[in-house]
Amino acid sequence: MSLRSTAMPAPELRVEVLRGGTVESFHRGSVAVMDADGAVRWQAGDIHRPIFPRSAVKLLQALPLVASGAADAFGLSDEQLALACASHGGEPAHVAAAADVLAKCGLDTLTLECGAHWPGHDAAARALARQQQEPTALHNNCSGKHAGFVCLGACLAQAGGHDPRGFLSGYVQAQHPVMREVSAALARCTDSPLADAPVGTDGCSIPTYALPLRALALGFARAGTGVGLSPTDAHAAHRLRQAVARHPFMVAGSGRFDSRVMEHFGERVFCKVGAEGVYCAALPELGLGVALKMDDGNTARAAEVLMAALLQAWVQRDEADAQLLQTLAEPVLRNWNGTEVGRLRLAPGTRFN
Amino acid sequence: MSLRSTAMPAPELRVEVLRGGTVESFHRGSVAVMDADGAVRWQAGDIHRPIFPRSAVKLLQALPLVASGAADAFGLSDEQLALACASHGGEPAHVAAAADVLAKCGLDTLTLECGAHWPGHDAAARALARQQQEPTALHNNCSGKHAGFVCLGACLAQAGGHDPRGFLSGYVQAQHPVMREVSAALARCTDSPLADAPVGTDGCSIPTYALPLRALALGFARAGTGVGLSPTDAHAAHRLRQAVARHPFMVAGSGRFDSRVMEHFGERVFCKVGAEGVYCAALPELGLGVALKMDDGNTARAAEVLMAALLQAWVQRDEADAQLLQTLAEPVLRNWNGTEVGRLRLAPGTRFN
Repeated sequence: MSLRSTAMPAPELRVEVLRGGTVESFHRGSVAVMDADGAVRWQAGDIHRPIFPRSAVKLLQALPLVASGAADAFGLSDEQLALACASHGGEPAHVAAAADVLAKCGLDTLTLECGAHWPGHDAAARALARQQQEPTALHNNCSGKHAGFVCLGACLAQAGGHDPRGFLSGYVQAQHPVMREVSAALARCTDSPLADAPVGTDGCSIPTYALPLRALALGFARAGTGVGLSPTDAHAAHRLRQAVARHPFMVAGSGRFDSRVMEHFGERVFCKVGAEGVYCAALPELGLGVALKMDDGNTARAAEVLMAALLQAWVQRDEADAQLLQTLAEPVLRNWNGTEVGRLRLAPGTRFN
Repeated sequence: MSLRSTAMPAPELRVEVLRGGTVESFHRGSVAVMDADGAVRWQAGDIHRPIFPRSAVKLLQALPLVASGAADAFGLSDEQLALACASHGGEPAHVAAAADVLAKCGLDTLTLECGAHWPGHDAAARALARQQQEPTALHNNCSGKHAGFVCLGACLAQAGGHDPRGFLSGYVQAQHPVMREVSAALARCTDSPLADAPVGTDGCSIPTYALPLRALALGFARAGTGVGLSPTDAHAAHRLRQAVARHPFMVAGSGRFDSRVMEHFGERVFCKVGAEGVYCAALPELGLGVALKMDDGNTARAAEVLMAALLQAWVQRDEADAQLLQTLAEPVLRNWNGTEVGRLRLAPGTRFN
C-alpha cells in the first residue's frame, strides 16, 4: 500500500509557555493523523521529513514478543507485556516486573544491554540513594522493552538449540536475529523499507530508524485496528494494547501522562511518548493513528500538551474526559514556593478541522 | 541614551541536535551584540521582542549589594559576591557560603524567601538523600542572590533603625524597598523604564521584567566597561566581575558552562545563564555586551552551544581558547552505555560577520 497525501500542507502548530500573561517561550510541532488505509486525515507542519520515533514505537517493537509465541512460552503476565511497551520511571514495581521477566527466561540483569541510569521518577531515585544503592539496568526506562527482547531471544535460542546467554550477546545490534525481528515488525507496520531510512543509535543502544510522521501514524492506525496487518500481528497488537489498558501504571508510572490517559480511557486510546518530543497514538474507535514531533525535541511540556489537545479535539466525549484532558492540555506552572507563575497551552486559534 | 538599531534584521540562528549524521531536533534563537553607546554591532533573529531575562541578569541585580555599601558593611568575601551572581548547583561549598552570608548579617535560612528545591548538581542531590536529609532554601540555585538581597535589606534596615527580620519580610515583592533597589539597577543599566515592561514571577518568587535583547545586551556592555554607568555602579560591576573571575566555581559549579568558561577566560568574559534559554555576557576587552534567547526556552543544549559559538567568533584568540570552546560548542552526546550517539552544533553556514 502506498501512502496518499492531501494536497495542502498545513502550518506547524505552536505550544506556548506563558509566564504571567506573556508568552515566554514556544515550541513548534508537526502532526500526522492517518487511517489504516493510508489516507492522511489531518496534518500540520512537515509530515514527510524522516524523524527518529525513539521510544514512541515500543508497541510495534514488542509485536514479535507476542507474535512469536515467546511471551506465552515463558508465561509473561499482562503487567509484563505492558512493561515491554514502556518507558517507565524505574519505580519498584517496574523494576520487579522486569527482573521477573528475566527470571522466567532463566536469565538475569547481566543479560540486559540497555545500560544503567537513575530512575526517572524522582522519588524512586532518591529512595534508592537513601538506601545507599546504585541503579542497575533494571532501572533503565527501557528495561521492560529489553526484557521483552531477551524473552524473544531466549525463545529463538531454544528453537535453534543455542545456549541463550551466548545467543543473546549483542542482541542490540541491527544484524542480531532479535533486532532483525523487531525492525521487521516496525517496517511492515509502517510500510517502510528500513534499508533506506536514516539510522541512529537510541539511548538504550538499539538502532532507531527515521521515518516520516505519516508512516508512523499509519503504523499506529494499523496497530489500533488490525487493518493491513497479518492476523498474527493484529492479534499481538490487540493483546499488547489490552495489557497496557489493564495495567497503565506499567507503561510509564506515577503521575505520568501515558499512565493517566490510559487509566482513564482504557482501550479507547493507546498513546506512547518518545524522547525528543515524539508521540504516537492509536485511536481504535476512530480507526486512526497519530504521530507528532516537536522541532526542538521537547517532550514533557510540548509534545504532551499537543497530544492532550489532539485528544480533546478527536476523542473527548464527556465531562470526565474533558476534565482530565484540560489539566493535561493547559498545565499550570508553579515556582519553588508553589506560586502559580504561568501555564502551557496550544496557541490560541489553532483549529483541528 | 536611545538604542540605535541596524537597518537589516538578520535571520534567527539554529542549533542542531544530531543523531548519527541526521538532524534529529533543532532550536531557534535570537542574539543581540551591542556596544556601551547603544549601537547594535551584530544581531540575529528578533532583538526587539521583550523576553524575560530570568537569572541571566543576576550581575545587574547584585549591583546595589555592593553600591550601597552593604557588602562591605557585613564583610562579604569575594566568594560570597560571586555567589550573589550565581545560579549554583547546590554543592556543599555553595550552601555553606550562602549560610555564612546570612550569619554575617545576624540572620538565618528562615529569612530566605526563594523556596527550597533539590540541588541541581545530581551528585550533590544524591549525597543529600544518602545522608537522609531534605533540601532547604540554601540549596535553591538562587540562594546566593537571595542572601545578597537579605544583606542589602539588613543594611537598609540598619540605616532606617528597623528590626531586620521584620523589615525583610516580603522582600521578594516588587514594592519592597529591597526589590525596588534591585529593579532600579536593572532599569538604569538597560535604559528601560520597567513600568512599561511585561512582568512575571520568577522561579525564586521575585518579579522578572521582560526586556528586548538589545536592551539586555546594552546593560552588559555597560557592566563590562563602566561606560554609561555612574562611577558607583561602574565600580560595583567591576568588583562583582572580578569576584566571579576569581571564584568561578561559585557562580555555577562542577562541570558547568559558566564556571568552565570563566575559569579559563577570567575577566575577559563574564557570562551568565538564565532559565528558558537565555544567556547574557559582557566582553570587556571588546567593549561589547551579548544577550541571546532560544525561542523554545532550551538552555542546557541550545543557549550554551550558541554562546560558545559566539565566543568562538568574537573572543577566541589562541589554541587553548579554541580547545575549550570547541568542546562547549560541539558537545558529544552519549547514551547510557557511554556510546557516542550524536552531537550538538550551530547549523553549518552560520556567519558572524
